[in-house]
Amino acid sequence: MTGSKIQTPYLLFMGDAPDDLAAKSARGVYEWRPELCVGQLRLEGCKAGVDLPDMTVAEAAAAGAKTFLLGVTNRGGVVSDEWQSILVDALDSGMDIVSGLHTRVGEIDAVRQAAERSGQTIHEVRHPHGPFNIATGKPRTGQRVLAVGTDCSVGKMYTMLALEKSLKARGLDATFRATGQTGIMIDGDGVPVDAVVADFIAGVVEDLAPAASDTHWDCIEGQGSLFHPSFAGVSLGLLHGAQPTALIMCHEPTRTHMRGLPHQSLPTIEDCIEANLAAARIVSPDVKIAGISVNTKHMTATAAETLLAELKDKHKLPCVDPGRGNIEDIVDALLILT
Amino acid sequence: MTGSKIQTPYLLFMGDAPDDLAAKSARGVYEWRPELCVGQLRLEGCKAGVDLPDMTVAEAAAAGAKTFLLGVTNRGGVVSDEWQSILVDALDSGMDIVSGLHTRVGEIDAVRQAAERSGQTIHEVRHPHGPFNIATGKPRTGQRVLAVGTDCSVGKMYTMLALEKSLKARGLDATFRATGQTGIMIDGDGVPVDAVVADFIAGVVEDLAPAASDTHWDCIEGQGSLFHPSFAGVSLGLLHGAQPTALIMCHEPTRTHMRGLPHQSLPTIEDCIEANLAAARIVSPDVKIAGISVNTKHMTATAAETLLAELKDKHKLPCVDPGRGNIEDIVDALLILT
Repeated sequence: MTGSKIQTPYLLFMGDAPDDLAAKSARGVYEWRPELCVGQLRLEGCKAGVDLPDMTVAEAAAAGAKTFLLGVTNRGGVVSDEWQSILVDALDSGMDIVSGLHTRVGEIDAVRQAAERSGQTIHEVRHPHGPFNIATGKPRTGQRVLAVGTDCSVGKMYTMLALEKSLKARGLDATFRATGQTGIMIDGDGVPVDAVVADFIAGVVEDLAPAASDTHWDCIEGQGSLFHPSFAGVSLGLLHGAQPTALIMCHEPTRTHMRGLPHQSLPTIEDCIEANLAAARIVSPDVKIAGISVNTKHMTATAAETLLAELKDKHKLPCVDPGRGNIEDIVDALLILT
Repeated sequence: MTGSKIQTPYLLFMGDAPDDLAAKSARGVYEWRPELCVGQLRLEGCKAGVDLPDMTVAEAAAAGAKTFLLGVTNRGGVVSDEWQSILVDALDSGMDIVSGLHTRVGEIDAVRQAAERSGQTIHEVRHPHGPFNIATGKPRTGQRVLAVGTDCSVGKMYTMLALEKSLKARGLDATFRATGQTGIMIDGDGVPVDAVVADFIAGVVEDLAPAASDTHWDCIEGQGSLFHPSFAGVSLGLLHGAQPTALIMCHEPTRTHMRGLPHQSLPTIEDCIEANLAAARIVSPDVKIAGISVNTKHMTATAAETLLAELKDKHKLPCVDPGRGNIEDIVDALLILT
């Protein structure tokens, strides 16, 4: 990202989000790090929300908020005058800003001036700053688990956050490594891998998940899929940079085609596991597959249970849905494998 | 690159290149497009050169040069005062500039001012400008041949330029598509794929080699290798964006490890062909391998001949070295296959 870790706690800005999906990043932060959130700020017409007190900027600053978290999409890509004045207000109240917008809020004159005036930092998590390094692929110590997927948006971040939580609950040393905007907001650190210059994809991941003790677990968020023609280059560079000791395959079983591409058929789970292992072996000859993380949110509990049992039987691998509160079978397998 | 095609003819600036390698891009342009070059400009101590008259900027402008081609590396990454004044002079003489430096010459005050004053264009071929599109992977018409490789710098650009030349000599409609700086200077157009933001790798190649008549051949320059851990993400995105109807595998048989990485072993040609075909099939189910282009410049003619015969026998594919003047067997195979 920008080098410095994002300060917490957060005031979650929900804007005028028309639904929960538009506030996905803010909601993700609250779901995984509720202890880092002091309140939410919602504008008229906002249909999203979390279970936190509504606060003005001044109230949040008084409650100790260190960073104003802009984790909501802006309608039509425009930062309205109302949003601008709230951002200025946040900076003048002594908060940093973390923004997940495509628009660089730090390039809006009034916001830039407020940042200069207040000395506060603006973290634009979609816009990484170098210098970055070219990857070397040199073997490094430490355990690194990477979430890979049959498609985009199938639960890779969720799976890695659940894995980190479980490993820590077992008393192990684990670190979530964020590679996308919501993950970066949750962790306060990370690199938006799809936004770096192509030559550096693998290099930024090598730096994000550096050599560590062999009892340390990096839980690296994956991006895209080797089978998604829009983004497979990002996925492969990330895979090589991660130099994973183990992979977790993430899957969403109700998809009928690759996300956003109605003409593009889905890979089988077997083919996807095999392709990822083959590519990973270039940098990590002993890489293992630890299990399949299945996002069953669009299925009934019964259908999900049946499917997980079928997949487990078919692939001879732990198959769980961390969204239904279980990742332990995969964690057990991981600890035996590595 | 920047949208507009580079104007020709060129004045080739050789600077104070300590050897021919430092002037690789300028030499490549002369080798493949001698008819586009009016002269060369060499400074004191320059050890590189081509078979063109030495000219000052004023002489080149009088001879009709439209673009000053900066196709040489700068020592220590610094643009000296002498270089700066020559660049200013070129712009003031009515030439555009095309630069392959990492440093943006258009950000040097004196050079920027000269460009503004003269209204001339500076093409920085290592620094692409958007907007770019995300790839869709939608099937498109036309024949597209992509050079892939067992490693970086094994002759992919050379092979595709030789292929274009041969196809044209046979009266076919062919277009070289450049994806790296030297190729862009040679063709006057293209995109430096490794310098675009990761999300757009495949998308820029879809736009670079768009749908065309089924009798049109796009000869697309590849980059890197699926087996090079620093750059494989670029190679895969390029492969998907190219949606190739055929691949040519490029290989340099005297390598002992992946370029720049002494710890990284080389793939076999078989594995590399299979991995590229498998990845290409996602967007191009009927993709074929047309042959192996072997760069034997570090071998004797006899050793090269023996090796090509062995490889042909082993892989049951045409194996040629276009650097020794032959690509015809691959072209024959290509025309039969597709």
